[in-house]
Amino acid sequence: MASMYGNKLKISIFGQSHSPAIGVTVDGLPAGFSIDMDRLQQFLARRAPGQNAYSTTRKEADVPQFLCGLYNGATCGAPLTAIIQNTNTRSGDYAELADCPRPGHADYPAAVKWSGHQDPTGGGHFSGRLTAPLCVAGGIALQMLEERGVAIGAHIAQIADVNDAPFDSVNLSAKTLRSVTEKAFPVLDDGAAAPMQAAILAARGEADSVGGIVECAAVGIPAGVGDPMFDGLESRIAAILFAVPAVKGVEFGAGFSCASMRGSQCNDPYVIRDGAVRTASNNNGGILGGIANGMPILVRAAIKPTPSIGIRQDSVSLSRMEEKTLVVHGRHDPCIVPRAVPVIEAAVALALLDAML
Amino acid sequence: MASMYGNKLKISIFGQSHSPAIGVTVDGLPAGFSIDMDRLQQFLARRAPGQNAYSTTRKEADVPQFLCGLYNGATCGAPLTAIIQNTNTRSGDYAELADCPRPGHADYPAAVKWSGHQDPTGGGHFSGRLTAPLCVAGGIALQMLEERGVAIGAHIAQIADVNDAPFDSVNLSAKTLRSVTEKAFPVLDDGAAAPMQAAILAARGEADSVGGIVECAAVGIPAGVGDPMFDGLESRIAAILFAVPAVKGVEFGAGFSCASMRGSQCNDPYVIRDGAVRTASNNNGGILGGIANGMPILVRAAIKPTPSIGIRQDSVSLSRMEEKTLVVHGRHDPCIVPRAVPVIEAAVALALLDAML
Amino acid sequence: MASMYGNKLKISIFGQSHSPAIGVTVDGLPAGFSIDMDRLQQFLARRAPGQNAYSTTRKEADVPQFLCGLYNGATCGAPLTAIIQNTNTRSGDYAELADCPRPGHADYPAAVKWSGHQDPTGGGHFSGRLTAPLCVAGGIALQMLEERGVAIGAHIAQIADVNDAPFDSVNLSAKTLRSVTEKAFPVLDDGAAAPMQAAILAARGEADSVGGIVECAAVGIPAGVGDPMFDGLESRIAAILFAVPAVKGVEFGAGFSCASMRGSQCNDPYVIRDGAVRTASNNNGGILGGIANGMPILVRAAIKPTPSIGIRQDSVSLSRMEEKTLVVHGRHDPCIVPRAVPVIEAAVALALLDAML
Amino acid sequence: MASMYGNKLKISIFGQSHSPAIGVTVDGLPAGFSIDMDRLQQFLARRAPGQNAYSTTRKEADVPQFLCGLYNGATCGAPLTAIIQNTNTRSGDYAELADCPRPGHADYPAAVKWSGHQDPTGGGHFSGRLTAPLCVAGGIALQMLEERGVAIGAHIAQIADVNDAPFDSVNLSAKTLRSVTEKAFPVLDDGAAAPMQAAILAARGEADSVGGIVECAAVGIPAGVGDPMFDGLESRIAAILFAVPAVKGVEFGAGFSCASMRGSQCNDPYVIRDGAVRTASNNNGGILGGIANGMPILVRAAIKPTPSIGIRQDSVSLSRMEEKTLVVHGRHDPCIVPRAVPVIEAAVALALLDAML
Repeated sequence: MASMYGNKLKISIFGQSHSPAIGVTVDGLPAGFSIDMDRLQQFLARRAPGQNAYSTTRKEADVPQFLCGLYNGATCGAPLTAIIQNTNTRSGDYAELADCPRPGHADYPAAVKWSGHQDPTGGGHFSGRLTAPLCVAGGIALQMLEERGVAIGAHIAQIADVNDAPFDSVNLSAKTLRSVTEKAFPVLDDGAAAPMQAAILAARGEADSVGGIVECAAVGIPAGVGDPMFDGLESRIAAILFAVPAVKGVEFGAGFSCASMRGSQCNDPYVIRDGAVRTASNNNGGILGGIANGMPILVRAAIKPTPSIGIRQDSVSLSRMEEKTLVVHGRHDPCIVPRAVPVIEAAVALALLDAML
Repeated sequence: MASMYGNKLKISIFGQSHSPAIGVTVDGLPAGFSIDMDRLQQFLARRAPGQNAYSTTRKEADVPQFLCGLYNGATCGAPLTAIIQNTNTRSGDYAELADCPRPGHADYPAAVKWSGHQDPTGGGHFSGRLTAPLCVAGGIALQMLEERGVAIGAHIAQIADVNDAPFDSVNLSAKTLRSVTEKAFPVLDDGAAAPMQAAILAARGEADSVGGIVECAAVGIPAGVGDPMFDGLESRIAAILFAVPAVKGVEFGAGFSCASMRGSQCNDPYVIRDGAVRTASNNNGGILGGIANGMPILVRAAIKPTPSIGIRQDSVSLSRMEEKTLVVHGRHDPCIVPRAVPVIEAAVALALLDAML
Repeated sequence: MASMYGNKLKISIFGQSHSPAIGVTVDGLPAGFSIDMDRLQQFLARRAPGQNAYSTTRKEADVPQFLCGLYNGATCGAPLTAIIQNTNTRSGDYAELADCPRPGHADYPAAVKWSGHQDPTGGGHFSGRLTAPLCVAGGIALQMLEERGVAIGAHIAQIADVNDAPFDSVNLSAKTLRSVTEKAFPVLDDGAAAPMQAAILAARGEADSVGGIVECAAVGIPAGVGDPMFDGLESRIAAILFAVPAVKGVEFGAGFSCASMRGSQCNDPYVIRDGAVRTASNNNGGILGGIANGMPILVRAAIKPTPSIGIRQDSVSLSRMEEKTLVVHGRHDPCIVPRAVPVIEAAVALALLDAML
Repeated sequence: MASMYGNKLKISIFGQSHSPAIGVTVDGLPAGFSIDMDRLQQFLARRAPGQNAYSTTRKEADVPQFLCGLYNGATCGAPLTAIIQNTNTRSGDYAELADCPRPGHADYPAAVKWSGHQDPTGGGHFSGRLTAPLCVAGGIALQMLEERGVAIGAHIAQIADVNDAPFDSVNLSAKTLRSVTEKAFPVLDDGAAAPMQAAILAARGEADSVGGIVECAAVGIPAGVGDPMFDGLESRIAAILFAVPAVKGVEFGAGFSCASMRGSQCNDPYVIRDGAVRTASNNNGGILGGIANGMPILVRAAIKPTPSIGIRQDSVSLSRMEEKTLVVHGRHDPCIVPRAVPVIEAAVALALLDAML
């Protein structure tokens, strides 16, 4: 295995940044579901580059073509495959990189792993561009989850040192999730947007980049969804989130803050609310023993600053085994976090739909 | 799937806290490896309960019996199964729990998932006791990795608000790892031990518990190990770490700290050291694009405070759907972090051996 | 993977002929099912050796111990593990075999695969004895299938040149299946028993062995069960049947006879019977495109003659790379087919339960 | 899972007979292999329809487009995806079939499985057309195996009642395999071709079809390849062969003939030939205990007669639940066996390459 994920749902992502096309196959989707193509396209637009000053100027239409899996516009039980043509590639930008790996990218380990046969152009199979087919699959999963009463949404929790307000971990509604995902710059506290954007532009002005954190929530997952141990929801969600380029940390609920908590603080006491079992706090992020407890599922993903920066960096020539410096050309995002928001939603949706089927 | 993990190595963990036995099957181990049973037993002893004032007083010999997979003391290609008898169980302690779930435990979601048919005694399949067979498998993996030039070790990075010194992420030696794992209380900065222990005893004195962080490192993993996307090392390691009870967060290298870094800080520049490609810093924790870059692999796991505490807590009666309070009896660790250290090592070892085969 | 099977149900079989124990773990069984242990033991007795003149004189109680997966006698959602102690082993019988492989056994390829580290005693992991844990898992699956309205039964279709009558492929009832499985020598045409037994005894008298064919049927599988392509019922059933030692051929419905049929003969026309869609013939053995069509599922497995025979055979010394002759000592079945009948039922049951969950 | 296969190699096949395209993704191919596109196209031509009087008149160029997985014409480690456009479709031919299932096809079970949402046109995902992408993947596998010293070839062993000579199971050379696969009508005994073709034309003349058997061999697989039990070579090969539409039986070596053999006949005695361990006969088809013994691997697949025939057949109306008759229009093969020969080779190649990696 490698670029395939899932149990009941099997997701296979293929493509390189500059190959003729990239795409995704999803096997195991329930049959008879009519995909709302307009909403899917709107979802993909949230990830698409070239929209504003905070992202790369590479423009891609990113319109998926559905090769199969549909009949009369609805899923038909057969595997669904969608591809996106790669049209706006500039392979010339990357000529030097096969020999001189970019710091922070997969160039070097890929070259070792595949003995120099890897596709170095645009990061090859490791390119952030591969999150586009992930979003195609995830966008469909989001629609299917909605039909099952599950809403998923994410926001920018942090960029550089600027923090957004967190989700209300106990009283979180589908409406709140929907409203934040409809924002051009998805933050809960609108006052956080300006300083975050300023931090991005400041980095950009110095040919540098900044990182951040995306917080994602799912409401409506029934208690009992998930499996113990290695197929726990945390294991499944983390496995797909760490497959998203630039994610370096994943935490659920209070996450790393649990370290300094007492058990009496961290435990979420049970209460009865409207005739249902709920918890009064949600430090466990809706998951206990790998299984949903019916509370909102809360996960945070740390996104490292885009490794492609314009500043001259130290690197090496692999062929000559000597040190040299490198300036990365090409068009890059000074901060990938805003575009990562729908990607994280897509990944979480795929993990949860797989667990619910 | 559920309690099975791995690609080339398949690990299946079975058992409940109070079932006749618990155990593990590992399929795919290379043949012809002679397990050092003494060292394995020493490794298991690090996880065993009842050793000191910081852990539960439940004592278990935890001596694995090998049912198969060995021939003349060496692995023989067939699946290896080891079991540990459950001898010191007090099921009476848990009688109330099937109806009144303990906050912070899997009791409630398990009851919903399995419609009341779950084994509630001692946490059933969700008990921390299941980390014993994980350590049997992991202890073997550690020995096999050592033969391949890989050393793995972990330390207590934090308990309550007390921090240990971090690993040197660039110049980390197998010797350092070995020496910390040989300590009764594995911290790098011995001065951190006393305040950590004081924090545990303070919690214990209040019938409460505390959490912490374990930092684990692997040195000697060659560049190129791992696979892209969903089988990246980060995905594989996170999937198994989140299967360890109480883990609520996982981060690699600088992890969540990346959020506030600039790309120029976070990127690890390449250098030539002793004729080999290395990086001058190691914010990526030895992994880029899911693949090892030859630097130490660094991962941190957040461990929540033991949910079993003696303080009276709010809960509910599932049968009567009404609120009630609960006092958890039984013998519990006021802090699971010291005993989690070898568990995290075992989990990381299994993930890495699987990726190297 | 290797000794693990299944999608929603995961079956892991472990053990060697002469290791301390053999066993099976089944993960994914529905919770809350009370296993009828008496019936399970009766089922296992059908496979057990030492019952009559047609089988090996090695006697094993073959009583499974359930280590976990049960709570109050019912499945509890956690993986179920059962082991069988190996008590009646005579390793001395096999001393020569590590160097001089028995024709028709896995001795030689196992020695090459595992570089001489394999367990040669009693065939190691390749022993027919490993079908005992398969029958434990399959016996449970049979009970669970019965609850779902599915009955499975098999009979000896052929031994040597003696044929039994075939199942009625269209009008086959659960009652017929039950009655044949209750026979000490399971044939449909009782007149076939005597000549089959004579053929076995004749072979035994010459220190030789004979092969045969087992035909297995399942009634009550609803149309629509199964998945396309690689997870078709035929692929799943064949994969587990070929894991049974000595199976060398698998066919569904008319199987190899289809080769000489016309389409107009082989196609099964649809009819309405009692308000349900049925087929008038059943040359496809109840499976089309990998998916059940609601008719009885019919599969036949060819069983080669037991390779362990008392006649002197040509072999080689692996250490000296020279030819030598070999006489296989030990206690062996002159015909494995009667004991294979419940094994085939167990394997088919596991494949079908996995597909139905 | 469903339309995905393999362990180290993951093969995902997608598409429907009349969807915009069909295709295949292969993940896990070794990097740095330059695919000989001309030879691949020649291989695909052997499966392509419309070549002569024995096959359907539907013509498809069947030229795969490689979307990704290649860099400078060689595999680059990333998943390889190839698609084939569906250009020559006549959906109108199939309008009636959604309600009135064709006998012998998957129409009915697919309609039940997917509650009427299946794509009925041209058999949808169950169409024999899906063997085209299987052949793309298999054709690449054949080239990679050749580089590893493995040759695979198949011939028509039987059509209707006409038999070809079998492969020499002991002294089989790569040259023999190559020469038979180069024939327009691949039989070993050229005298068998004319009566086979006559049988096909006779069936065609009566708007009927005939079945047959394909025998496939692999030489050069080293002893030790394969895994025990469920990942035995027989299990792996059978699982992929039964995924090929119309395959109803699979046997290895003497297969079903073993049933009437004595052990002393069926066992393959070991001999030393040219300093290597070989067997004097090959009734086990090169596989013992699921593992290659170094002899030629021999497998036979029974192919049922094409279910699409022009003769009026009994069927039912699913919507009205009443019996009716059906005449299948469209362009169909009177015998699929000749075109199945490369498909069987492709499937065996994928199973064996997966086992060798």
